[in-house]
Amino acid sequence: MIDTKHKTDHFKGVGVLNPSDLIGKEYGSIFTVNTKEFYLLKPTLMDKFKALKRKAQIIIPKDAAHIILHCDITPGKTILEAGVGSGGLTTILASMIQPDGMVISYDLRSDFINHAQKNIDNAKLHDFVTIKEKDVTKAIDETNLHAIILDIPNPWDAVKHAWNALETGGTLCTYSPLISQVENTIKTMKQYSFIDIKTFETLYREMIVKEQGTRPSFDMLGHTGYLTFARKVTSELL
Amino acid sequence: MIDTKHKTDHFKGVGVLNPSDLIGKEYGSIFTVNTKEFYLLKPTLMDKFKALKRKAQIIIPKDAAHIILHCDITPGKTILEAGVGSGGLTTILASMIQPDGMVISYDLRSDFINHAQKNIDNAKLHDFVTIKEKDVTKAIDETNLHAIILDIPNPWDAVKHAWNALETGGTLCTYSPLISQVENTIKTMKQYSFIDIKTFETLYREMIVKEQGTRPSFDMLGHTGYLTFARKVTSELL
Amino acid sequence: MIDTKHKTDHFKGVGVLNPSDLIGKEYGSIFTVNTKEFYLLKPTLMDKFKALKRKAQIIIPKDAAHIILHCDITPGKTILEAGVGSGGLTTILASMIQPDGMVISYDLRSDFINHAQKNIDNAKLHDFVTIKEKDVTKAIDETNLHAIILDIPNPWDAVKHAWNALETGGTLCTYSPLISQVENTIKTMKQYSFIDIKTFETLYREMIVKEQGTRPSFDMLGHTGYLTFARKVTSELL
Amino acid sequence: MIDTKHKTDHFKGVGVLNPSDLIGKEYGSIFTVNTKEFYLLKPTLMDKFKALKRKAQIIIPKDAAHIILHCDITPGKTILEAGVGSGGLTTILASMIQPDGMVISYDLRSDFINHAQKNIDNAKLHDFVTIKEKDVTKAIDETNLHAIILDIPNPWDAVKHAWNALETGGTLCTYSPLISQVENTIKTMKQYSFIDIKTFETLYREMIVKEQGTRPSFDMLGHTGYLTFARKVTSELL
Repeated sequence: MIDTKHKTDHFKGVGVLNPSDLIGKEYGSIFTVNTKEFYLLKPTLMDKFKALKRKAQIIIPKDAAHIILHCDITPGKTILEAGVGSGGLTTILASMIQPDGMVISYDLRSDFINHAQKNIDNAKLHDFVTIKEKDVTKAIDETNLHAIILDIPNPWDAVKHAWNALETGGTLCTYSPLISQVENTIKTMKQYSFIDIKTFETLYREMIVKEQGTRPSFDMLGHTGYLTFARKVTSELL
Repeated sequence: MIDTKHKTDHFKGVGVLNPSDLIGKEYGSIFTVNTKEFYLLKPTLMDKFKALKRKAQIIIPKDAAHIILHCDITPGKTILEAGVGSGGLTTILASMIQPDGMVISYDLRSDFINHAQKNIDNAKLHDFVTIKEKDVTKAIDETNLHAIILDIPNPWDAVKHAWNALETGGTLCTYSPLISQVENTIKTMKQYSFIDIKTFETLYREMIVKEQGTRPSFDMLGHTGYLTFARKVTSELL
Repeated sequence: MIDTKHKTDHFKGVGVLNPSDLIGKEYGSIFTVNTKEFYLLKPTLMDKFKALKRKAQIIIPKDAAHIILHCDITPGKTILEAGVGSGGLTTILASMIQPDGMVISYDLRSDFINHAQKNIDNAKLHDFVTIKEKDVTKAIDETNLHAIILDIPNPWDAVKHAWNALETGGTLCTYSPLISQVENTIKTMKQYSFIDIKTFETLYREMIVKEQGTRPSFDMLGHTGYLTFARKVTSELL
Repeated sequence: MIDTKHKTDHFKGVGVLNPSDLIGKEYGSIFTVNTKEFYLLKPTLMDKFKALKRKAQIIIPKDAAHIILHCDITPGKTILEAGVGSGGLTTILASMIQPDGMVISYDLRSDFINHAQKNIDNAKLHDFVTIKEKDVTKAIDETNLHAIILDIPNPWDAVKHAWNALETGGTLCTYSPLISQVENTIKTMKQYSFIDIKTFETLYREMIVKEQGTRPSFDMLGHTGYLTFARKVTSELL
């Protein structure tokens, strides 16, 4: 059963829905906008992600999926990301660390922060996210963080602060489109006691399965960003 | 601080460690096996995954990562997978649905079940996993499941049972190496009221970043399996 | 020094050039269209390919390159392709088999044939190409062909004729977007004495190298077609 | 009909063949080594390539194929490559420029040169190849070359000589495994009047087509080298 406070919802290219019409309906019900039928379904993580209003470039699911696994983003963990962008990765991270973890998100731009906060509110994840207007390359307030994810142009400038802010065994992740960004970041990571440094790229290709036969999709994204992961070990700096 | 009941642990190619030597040590401590130094770190999800003893072929992280996102594997969810194999995917799923979700796992072979159960016990995830010796193509006991993941040779034979066992809006995922498996599965999915059917493959390539320069790794896995996702909508069968 | 019979040449988005202005100029000269400067260069194979006017879908260089190597398209060879399409592959093949080889090209559609013939004439390759309005699935006139390349929807229907038309040791190549096309073709190839049957796909990704750094291109073609190669060995049918 | 001067040929893991037994036999004949049957076939370009005895790392067909197309390696052209390595690319280039073109090949190491010369002799391509013991980064003797292909660790050191040695409109190609090699090369190319500078990588994946179904091969080469192409335009240096 759905409850909603929205006055109207625009279905792009189809028409306008009055959400109050949905009140009291069961999930799985069919409703109609103009002549088109829609199913009323409980939103999944991917539904929430796709519903995001985008202002900044976002980390897409093919990369976010790897961040979750390699940063050990599981229930109860406290993690930091910078910047918040449109709140896309934030939404995924917050869904994973609930019910008793926390995502702290830094960004330099208040317009991004306001925009991201709305997306997070819409996804009903506000209890699990704290956004701060802060420069992660200047300082990190928190300590004993389980993971830090940097999607900024100069992640190397935040490596020192990340090392201090991570718990022993914690993971630093950076996401960078350019090779030189990866090289500079890894060079700086090696100056601190980061181990298990690993960089990779992921590719994703849909298969089109139709009556007349199956083939890979002609559409494919050639590149997003390189993901680099490194782990902090305690001890004095090497 | 670590506690352990193991009598000895073999470090492949290095030597043997008496785990009782580690009792009382802090995470981040350095310990020595023969002349080699090791860090004592709290295991992450990926550590647990790598520590698995493998008996059956397993779904690797590059694919598991997408299963988590596209099946909405988040805290509190109840999901079913078949077969359990070595318990690799089980370990990842269980880590994500804790503290109050459940992974139910079917397998035909008792030797796989025993093996997987040990891996899950070692990963301390036994409270979140129930393994059953059952054939998923014959019947599914559970209902209102949030997601079902099929890694079996003939997933199409379980599609009908999956449709009955899923909650409205729930996701069915199949993992198959062969194109014909994908085609048969999708054909069957379309006979039931599954929507948003999507198939893709993922590729993963490491980057080697060294003093002398950066290049992609020469090693790359050409294929694992195709992932297919579909969503149940309530209503009579179409 | 260039000679040309064209009256005018349109430089898309720039202006119009009167080719007679170029007569007597040396290669490497700079000429101007409106305010933009252009170099006068002798056309390479790729220049000719890019200059093709396209009517039908064409086999692109990333795939044509493999056809040349795996079909042994070298000077003096006689080969057959079907269909001719826009004459794109024809242009490349003819460039490779000159000065004393021949490309025979079958197509069902006279409009494609006329269009392709113009492209081949423009590339000054008419002495090395013979186009016929014929259905390759009905019969092949020629014998002792060094290679046959099939870019048609149903290559399996031409396999028998190809076997008869190839010389001993000759290569049959098919180009098909769909998996089922590949499967049907290989099944038929195996009914004849074809050996060394091999299918592959090729991917191509540009690297963007700029002042600010290097990265793979975001643009990438996810799929074109699968290439299958097989070799005829003499002997009665197996 | 085959003629041969070899005394014996070893079929790896099968046995030994006395080539004189093949004299007078027709192509397509079956002959037997121990109990295994072989077909006697005229060697194609790929046969010659596979028959190469390898001493140095070689440029493989997936990359050589693109070099042929993008460097316009067609009958009658004069081209230079450095180094010769095992003569693998040389074999392919020489097959393409015959009957009246020439491949000039520089290498620093006399052992490579001797080894490559034997491979080229075996492939009966000696009339189309001239190998010199020379350092391409020191000087290039030839002028008006149609294309130059550099497979050396420091191609940027040969860019100036390449510019002088190429004809107007000629193509310079470099093959480099590392990103930094590509960056240094392109930086130097831009100091000369090279235009149309383009870098890409190619991937190749086999499809396994069997009775039980079709899938991509698990084996795949993750990387070989980046190919960079640039074209000389006449004019003073910019």
